[in-house]
Amino acid sequence: MLERYGHGGDLWTAEETFGRPRDQFLDFSSNMNPLGPPPVVNQLLRDAWQDIVKYPDPAVRELRYKLAQKYEVGVESILVGNGAAELIDLTARVLRPSVTGLARPSFSEYEEAIHKTGGRIYNIPLRPSHQFELQQQDVEAAISAVDLFFLGHPNNPTGRLLPRNIVDSLLESGRSCVLDEAFMDFVPNEQEHSLLKLASTSRKLIVIRSMTKFYSIPGIRLGFMVAHPDLIREIRNQQVQWSVNYLAQRIGAAVLEDEEFERASRQWLQDEKVWLTDQLQQLGLDVVPTEVNFVLFSFPAVLGLTVKQAQKHMGQMGILIRDASLFEGLNEQYGRVAIRLREDNERLIEGLRQTIEVLAQNRGLSHD
Amino acid sequence: MLERYGHGGDLWTAEETFGRPRDQFLDFSSNMNPLGPPPVVNQLLRDAWQDIVKYPDPAVRELRYKLAQKYEVGVESILVGNGAAELIDLTARVLRPSVTGLARPSFSEYEEAIHKTGGRIYNIPLRPSHQFELQQQDVEAAISAVDLFFLGHPNNPTGRLLPRNIVDSLLESGRSCVLDEAFMDFVPNEQEHSLLKLASTSRKLIVIRSMTKFYSIPGIRLGFMVAHPDLIREIRNQQVQWSVNYLAQRIGAAVLEDEEFERASRQWLQDEKVWLTDQLQQLGLDVVPTEVNFVLFSFPAVLGLTVKQAQKHMGQMGILIRDASLFEGLNEQYGRVAIRLREDNERLIEGLRQTIEVLAQNRGLSHD
Repeated sequence: MLERYGHGGDLWTAEETFGRPRDQFLDFSSNMNPLGPPPVVNQLLRDAWQDIVKYPDPAVRELRYKLAQKYEVGVESILVGNGAAELIDLTARVLRPSVTGLARPSFSEYEEAIHKTGGRIYNIPLRPSHQFELQQQDVEAAISAVDLFFLGHPNNPTGRLLPRNIVDSLLESGRSCVLDEAFMDFVPNEQEHSLLKLASTSRKLIVIRSMTKFYSIPGIRLGFMVAHPDLIREIRNQQVQWSVNYLAQRIGAAVLEDEEFERASRQWLQDEKVWLTDQLQQLGLDVVPTEVNFVLFSFPAVLGLTVKQAQKHMGQMGILIRDASLFEGLNEQYGRVAIRLREDNERLIEGLRQTIEVLAQNRGLSHD
Repeated sequence: MLERYGHGGDLWTAEETFGRPRDQFLDFSSNMNPLGPPPVVNQLLRDAWQDIVKYPDPAVRELRYKLAQKYEVGVESILVGNGAAELIDLTARVLRPSVTGLARPSFSEYEEAIHKTGGRIYNIPLRPSHQFELQQQDVEAAISAVDLFFLGHPNNPTGRLLPRNIVDSLLESGRSCVLDEAFMDFVPNEQEHSLLKLASTSRKLIVIRSMTKFYSIPGIRLGFMVAHPDLIREIRNQQVQWSVNYLAQRIGAAVLEDEEFERASRQWLQDEKVWLTDQLQQLGLDVVPTEVNFVLFSFPAVLGLTVKQAQKHMGQMGILIRDASLFEGLNEQYGRVAIRLREDNERLIEGLRQTIEVLAQNRGLSHD
């Protein structure tokens, strides 16, 4: 299984599995902005590398000030982390919910973080019949059962935002609510949907953001969270000293100023999302409408193949896709792919077309 | 207070305190090898920076194999961390000792990690009368009181190794023992003193190492620990996914191969340790004999000044020293300085000379 460590983007395991050097895969299993990293990242690593002889700022001052400015929240409401993964872990450890409501399917780190604290999970179904959009009745059923909601907004792997009425229900429920907005930067009209500002003063709402997807810097690890200053202080007390390395701090502060990168990224995604969705549908796949830079799809039963078969076949061709059946709540028909630049997307489509054809043939033969 | 976040090397706070740009301080408060980083670090950041568009290897395979080879321990006995600080924190969280024996003075992170888990501390004195070398009778008194020892080997801020008979007592005591060997690479004949190999199969002994001091890369965060494979697995399960960033993994694997850097570093320290110790003594300071790249000293009462006064005066001159009175077990006379290259060390000595002179004069005036 390619997702040996539970995630996409594991090129080391891909190398071991398919016997091809890890830099020769076209990776659709991890959801990075193909326009990134912004040019300033290269410049910074060239010019500022010698500063790694110094400790990082333990208070992450420069980056926190810039985030506060950009998102118009108080600097005391911001905590920067060694990737969003650290902030998910810290939040679970500090809040220690006894029962946490998780949408199914959703990002596996929520469950892992909750399990580490010994908490229980309450499953909230996302229904294919509603295109995986969270439904009012399912939230209402959960409210009496949970003390915390941990939800993706937009959700991974479905690419769906929480509808406004659902957000309102959550806020009115009196339950604590952690929203993972790791992919919010990709959403058109981000400001209308993000709950960052509300989180900065709320005692019940916490928002976690990643900076590694939109800026394509997962290797350096960078995320931040916004919550009430009292909670931020409490979580900060549990964080390891110098958790956010120096280069991540500098890169984070620098990329926030690249407005042209932001504009170009939105333009690319607007065009490419439509094109790729259309092409996947033309292959006969069922595609979930997405708000972000990845697409959940399923192989309809009539094609007679599973995502594991497809992943293996495509891996041998040097193309990595995500086996989405590993997400609780999805069956063996589901796959997830990142949206990349046109040329790469064309290779994906061609690879999928061949895979569907070859596997269908093999199936025909084995039935003879 | 310069150590606002409890440590040396905080140039951001120094900048705020002394109103001088943070790259214009001569920093003796953080203990980095002045020969570092090795040249391969620059080359790597120039050549491999684009790879930060990929996730780090979640299993840190390349670096763990190289560490296993260099230190002749099994790869399953090694866990790499986001700095030694993360490993200290994880170890405390997984072992959850109820009473931990800490030498006083010692590195403040041990105590912080224990406090986070709600554990209690048992103080083991290091006595100035014995040049801060841990004494048999004090260890014996501790054995019945603690379930875990957490000790620096060599210890920070004293620069002293655990004597061999003490190590034997600890191993025979039946208590668990975590040794922080963050500065062990600086010790002449490291192999004779390090307990890495023993830790790789022991069920009671854990060794934590830093890679940021010897290779001067604290900004990128990198440490590792060696313990029994069962314990490593348990601690790994609590570690945050992708905790060790891609550049740290690559840099770590590359610097291990630079034998010339290692040789030159040992040569530099051998010479400079003698010179600086001698100079400090000539200024009238009491100097604790050190095994590593920093020196603990005290201003004798006759000089009539405290380390806080000296730190402030020298900070205004652009030279940062560590206020060691912040370590529990040391009084207001104690300071700590890193050993740097000769030219810098000369500036330190000259700065201290002037400081002692000026503060003595002021004291004379205020008594008039």
